[in-house]
Amino acid sequence: MISAAKPSGNDTGPIRLGMVGGGQGAFIGAVHRIAARLDGHFQLVAGALSSDPERARESGAELGLDSDRCYESFQQMAVAEAARNDGIEAVSIVTPNHMHYPAARAFLGAGIHVICDKPLTSTLADANDLAALVEKSGKLFILTHNYTGYPMVRQAREMVAQGMLGTIRLVHAEYPQDWLTEAEEASGNKQAEWRTDPAQSGAGGCVGDIGTHAWNLASFVSGLETDSLAADLDSFVEGRRLDDNVHVMLRFKAQGEERPAKGMLWASQVAPGNENCLKLRIYGSKGGLEWEQEHPNELWYTPFGQAKQKLTRGGAGAMPAASRVTRIPAGHPEGYLEGFANIYGEAAAAIRARRGNNSSLPEDIIFPTVQDGVKGIRFIDACVKSSSDNAGWVKL
Amino acid sequence: MISAAKPSGNDTGPIRLGMVGGGQGAFIGAVHRIAARLDGHFQLVAGALSSDPERARESGAELGLDSDRCYESFQQMAVAEAARNDGIEAVSIVTPNHMHYPAARAFLGAGIHVICDKPLTSTLADANDLAALVEKSGKLFILTHNYTGYPMVRQAREMVAQGMLGTIRLVHAEYPQDWLTEAEEASGNKQAEWRTDPAQSGAGGCVGDIGTHAWNLASFVSGLETDSLAADLDSFVEGRRLDDNVHVMLRFKAQGEERPAKGMLWASQVAPGNENCLKLRIYGSKGGLEWEQEHPNELWYTPFGQAKQKLTRGGAGAMPAASRVTRIPAGHPEGYLEGFANIYGEAAAAIRARRGNNSSLPEDIIFPTVQDGVKGIRFIDACVKSSSDNAGWVKL
Amino acid sequence: MISAAKPSGNDTGPIRLGMVGGGQGAFIGAVHRIAARLDGHFQLVAGALSSDPERARESGAELGLDSDRCYESFQQMAVAEAARNDGIEAVSIVTPNHMHYPAARAFLGAGIHVICDKPLTSTLADANDLAALVEKSGKLFILTHNYTGYPMVRQAREMVAQGMLGTIRLVHAEYPQDWLTEAEEASGNKQAEWRTDPAQSGAGGCVGDIGTHAWNLASFVSGLETDSLAADLDSFVEGRRLDDNVHVMLRFKAQGEERPAKGMLWASQVAPGNENCLKLRIYGSKGGLEWEQEHPNELWYTPFGQAKQKLTRGGAGAMPAASRVTRIPAGHPEGYLEGFANIYGEAAAAIRARRGNNSSLPEDIIFPTVQDGVKGIRFIDACVKSSSDNAGWVKL
Amino acid sequence: MISAAKPSGNDTGPIRLGMVGGGQGAFIGAVHRIAARLDGHFQLVAGALSSDPERARESGAELGLDSDRCYESFQQMAVAEAARNDGIEAVSIVTPNHMHYPAARAFLGAGIHVICDKPLTSTLADANDLAALVEKSGKLFILTHNYTGYPMVRQAREMVAQGMLGTIRLVHAEYPQDWLTEAEEASGNKQAEWRTDPAQSGAGGCVGDIGTHAWNLASFVSGLETDSLAADLDSFVEGRRLDDNVHVMLRFKAQGEERPAKGMLWASQVAPGNENCLKLRIYGSKGGLEWEQEHPNELWYTPFGQAKQKLTRGGAGAMPAASRVTRIPAGHPEGYLEGFANIYGEAAAAIRARRGNNSSLPEDIIFPTVQDGVKGIRFIDACVKSSSDNAGWVKL
Repeated sequence: MISAAKPSGNDTGPIRLGMVGGGQGAFIGAVHRIAARLDGHFQLVAGALSSDPERARESGAELGLDSDRCYESFQQMAVAEAARNDGIEAVSIVTPNHMHYPAARAFLGAGIHVICDKPLTSTLADANDLAALVEKSGKLFILTHNYTGYPMVRQAREMVAQGMLGTIRLVHAEYPQDWLTEAEEASGNKQAEWRTDPAQSGAGGCVGDIGTHAWNLASFVSGLETDSLAADLDSFVEGRRLDDNVHVMLRFKAQGEERPAKGMLWASQVAPGNENCLKLRIYGSKGGLEWEQEHPNELWYTPFGQAKQKLTRGGAGAMPAASRVTRIPAGHPEGYLEGFANIYGEAAAAIRARRGNNSSLPEDIIFPTVQDGVKGIRFIDACVKSSSDNAGWVKL
Repeated sequence: MISAAKPSGNDTGPIRLGMVGGGQGAFIGAVHRIAARLDGHFQLVAGALSSDPERARESGAELGLDSDRCYESFQQMAVAEAARNDGIEAVSIVTPNHMHYPAARAFLGAGIHVICDKPLTSTLADANDLAALVEKSGKLFILTHNYTGYPMVRQAREMVAQGMLGTIRLVHAEYPQDWLTEAEEASGNKQAEWRTDPAQSGAGGCVGDIGTHAWNLASFVSGLETDSLAADLDSFVEGRRLDDNVHVMLRFKAQGEERPAKGMLWASQVAPGNENCLKLRIYGSKGGLEWEQEHPNELWYTPFGQAKQKLTRGGAGAMPAASRVTRIPAGHPEGYLEGFANIYGEAAAAIRARRGNNSSLPEDIIFPTVQDGVKGIRFIDACVKSSSDNAGWVKL
Repeated sequence: MISAAKPSGNDTGPIRLGMVGGGQGAFIGAVHRIAARLDGHFQLVAGALSSDPERARESGAELGLDSDRCYESFQQMAVAEAARNDGIEAVSIVTPNHMHYPAARAFLGAGIHVICDKPLTSTLADANDLAALVEKSGKLFILTHNYTGYPMVRQAREMVAQGMLGTIRLVHAEYPQDWLTEAEEASGNKQAEWRTDPAQSGAGGCVGDIGTHAWNLASFVSGLETDSLAADLDSFVEGRRLDDNVHVMLRFKAQGEERPAKGMLWASQVAPGNENCLKLRIYGSKGGLEWEQEHPNELWYTPFGQAKQKLTRGGAGAMPAASRVTRIPAGHPEGYLEGFANIYGEAAAAIRARRGNNSSLPEDIIFPTVQDGVKGIRFIDACVKSSSDNAGWVKL
Repeated sequence: MISAAKPSGNDTGPIRLGMVGGGQGAFIGAVHRIAARLDGHFQLVAGALSSDPERARESGAELGLDSDRCYESFQQMAVAEAARNDGIEAVSIVTPNHMHYPAARAFLGAGIHVICDKPLTSTLADANDLAALVEKSGKLFILTHNYTGYPMVRQAREMVAQGMLGTIRLVHAEYPQDWLTEAEEASGNKQAEWRTDPAQSGAGGCVGDIGTHAWNLASFVSGLETDSLAADLDSFVEGRRLDDNVHVMLRFKAQGEERPAKGMLWASQVAPGNENCLKLRIYGSKGGLEWEQEHPNELWYTPFGQAKQKLTRGGAGAMPAASRVTRIPAGHPEGYLEGFANIYGEAAAAIRARRGNNSSLPEDIIFPTVQDGVKGIRFIDACVKSSSDNAGWVKL
């Protein structure tokens, strides 16, 4: 059962990891560190943890990094680590969006694998450049769309892929939050500040921060490509510079002869009572699936004409796709950090495969790639464009 | 507590009721009869229960009607009952949509109050005509958008009206079902047949049958007027002649200086695992509300920044708007029939007020009117029009 | 679908019903009246609605009874109605417990069928006498353990009977409420007063009022006979004269060779946050079932080693035992009143069978009998006795 | 927010940890390792992972231990590690129950802190001896009753302690599972084998394995001491040597003048459909609390007379007692491993305090001690004794 990310053979030593961003006051950096550590795959040994040198040093010390591996800039770090025999094998980039691209470029250039938070970049141009760089570098690039790491999300994807839902007709994704119901960005909340700042986040606010998660998840599980969308973005809070709510209608590309699937997507940061209610519902000609992040160990499955079934992580009906990222028995909840750690587990397996000079990865390794990231930026762009055009239809 | 529809004074005798439609094999007619009977307000005494004379007679006999009050046509019934001293005071029209208008016209013309199932008519022209007829007749017209009768829906409406949610920003309504996932209309199911037949249902299939319920509910609780909408209708089942799924983006009219609210609406008859999952979520600057029909005795209320509260019918925090339509203590569930009976209870109170020659109704009586019905038909029309125009925006 | 209590043949006229108790200020009387009326089986035509003559008259007038059939005492009513050609065929007894016996005796003696609220009586002696009287009279006696009328309770019973759970091992029943958390009986609440008064309720408070419901339900669904029990009763509120909380361990009689089943039962009126949380869980060698009254349209079924299934009223997997007491489609909730009305529906079917001079009832008619009532009183007695003996084991 | 187990000052280096048990095929050992690693507090450097030398070596290699620190016995390990400058500071004992005592004795004797799985020992004599040894040694002893590490359990305890529930009246704890519904121990399942073997588990089966968890949790949150209990144990599966189901009635010691609280406890391994449904409900004169392990991020709170509130981990109303063991924002679920890691976090804080030669621990550190373990064994003993005496009352 404790199968997640089980290392094997002579490649079992922890992977040497660096981090860009994630210093004091940050949120997602700490999550990445726990995720990297949880299964023992990675050891954090270097960091450019803040653009403020003082804070970078202090943050590094707090994390027990050697002082000579606490860098003042990611550029410096890329060069120095590449030159060391025991230099980092991979770097986690956990900065605000606009820094993803330059940081990734630096490490790819130095021959170091990249694990990067989402959305991929703050502009589509950067995204396309980055995809080209990854291709050229031959290095691994893992985008932490962490919700794809949940076991029951893997299970759902497998069930769709096996045709258990028949032809997919409907995809409904939503991700409501409430933390920006008031002007939090005006109260000194650093997380709110950069997320509502176009210079750091890009053209999408809510749609970029969590809308992409919902859309990525919908795409991941359904296996469908989006053809076009119509989006209505709003900033309900006075003075807010980016959207805090987005409504989207989706049209998917046809699969064969069947009528193409349709969908709806809603993301919000101004829906009081919602914490992180990411929810996905998929319906096909033979059955339906429902999953929500706040109760991630459960997956509702309804074969048409039969009773509704609550599948549980590790329980009856669990498929290998879910079991291989499951650590503990059914009924003992795993959560957000475990799901995140599964992405790191996949990254570790891929990096280890490369240690062995394998040019191809084992088939069962699944992680969001730079191409998924480019698609995500296209999704944001299309939403912004549609919304500025009275929510007209935009091809993706 | 047993307050719903409590009769009083000298107007306590049951109201003499007739019915058009609802004979053997029908569904909603039996619901109306239970709703009418549940609180003892009405006595069914006459009927034109089927367009098939034989079935009309048999159905009437089964219900214990006098044979001379089992009519072969509603026209005949309107004339005959109007001529009796003990003739019906009100009629319930429970036919397929296209018959609502001619039947209502006949009874209004005969000076008889009308209780009518939704949607109001099968065309907008009929709807407008009918509204004019009602106005001219001076008779009562009650449209059975029954979900507005649920106590916690009344509570929600009152909370919004009192400003407990602040300025409304978001309205999300959905009504997924699954019973038409396959071509049920081809299997001899009478309910499926007329609901998928444009001649009987009008231009809307799913959008007319349940989309209107969701939209009416959203309007009723939020108090918002819809400004415009963009709708994407589909018929996923091969050969189906009307839509079986509808996605809608909504824009509401501004209230004062505030940014207008937005919304999404989804109705489906092809979502496996969903029985009658009508759900409404409303979010404002100060809090949120969530309600669903399958667990109607609960209302989730989240004042921003406070813990989520589960309000229960008859429980702590119940307002008079809810209590007056509540029969039994908290924790003893009331359901669909009780909510439906509350509409009949309001109708009874209104009819009794008219018995006393009151030209105006008591303030606390609430029921959906012919005007609400016209709006519903406009909603259907707008959805169909938008969808045929590539889901472009249409003013309501 | 609208099958509940469908009358047939020449016995379709409503049954003439009288009522004892249930006047102004009462609770359960109004519930009985709605239940009797809901399916059109009964017509209330006479009453001895209060022991206070003035209130009896006023209550009767409010209900539209003829003034000459508003009696000042049940004795008077029994005699007068028995003498009329159009006299009542059945009486509903909805008084406090101590009056059940004398009232039932009067009507049985007058040859009138009895529908009686639970618990059967306030003493075991009365209960035994009453059972003998019923036997002698040849009249029907229906005890309104209303929870046995819920469709999914019928379904559960049928599933157990068909062996779908294997050999039953465990039965867990609970019924927590919170309305007596404080000394409500000291505040003028009439319902609280008599329920905490030994003279009116008998020796059991909470155990008699709701503990019997939980135990009856457990017995009804499991089909098991209780062998013995150990009970711990408490009165947590200062000055309260009867128990407001009861803990019971149960041992059932063996069925064949298998180890006898065990159980636990909890009933409370002092558990804040619980309204009417009657819940039943049954586990056998092959599977489990879980049901709760506050969401009565759902039944959880878990065949061992398979995914948990949520069966719904009217949904996939519904058995005839449930369907025949189901009125409306799956997803439209039925509630407490419908469940209660199902008991009246069974009573009506039985009474109509007797109209036809049938000595035996159709097999599928199910209702709690006077014998079930005697068992309930034995249960109360055993609990009180055990508790007074330091919760030692007492045979039932 | 990422506050759990935050190290500080000069004591930040990871703690050197050894492990006894937990080799290949074990379950709980892997859980301990993740818990130890999750927050970076511990580094596993030595192990006696199996009583089978070959398996011990292989297991150690798999975990990346130096081969000279993979010991063949815990005795050898205790001696060798105590002699090293870089020897382990603490050991985790994760063997079957009967080995806890000898292993703990060896490490305490060697001056090494002990973290030990529950129940404490397999006999009460061992438990008492061990408590004396701990006292004498001056070393830390942490018992991993891991459910006490959940943030909302901490919150519940604090709410009770602050009097938010008033005087506690009722405590209901249950822990149903279903994995031993059939004779799993006969099918080669190692976990089932030792758990149903008196020689390895002690006199309690289900009651020792999970009943103690439920009872410990009830005691931890309520703050109540158990006065006496009556228990009914069963082995429902043919041939099983230890109990697989236990029913308990509880009486607590009085607190002041108030009537003592009562409780019920149920643990089962034969309840199909239950995975790890540990659930605790506590009711007092002013309110109630409900929590369940399978949805651990939610805590239901009902102040009497108010609406039911769903408190969430990290959400509105979170108290410092919960926040200090919370890592991520509300709505992102934490689970079993995080709760377990919180126990390790507390252990780490205590061990670090001792590094600094502090004789007393910071006040806010909370973990189950050897005394709690002794009480747990007394609970098991009392249950077994009561059950063998026809479930009579036994003082604790």
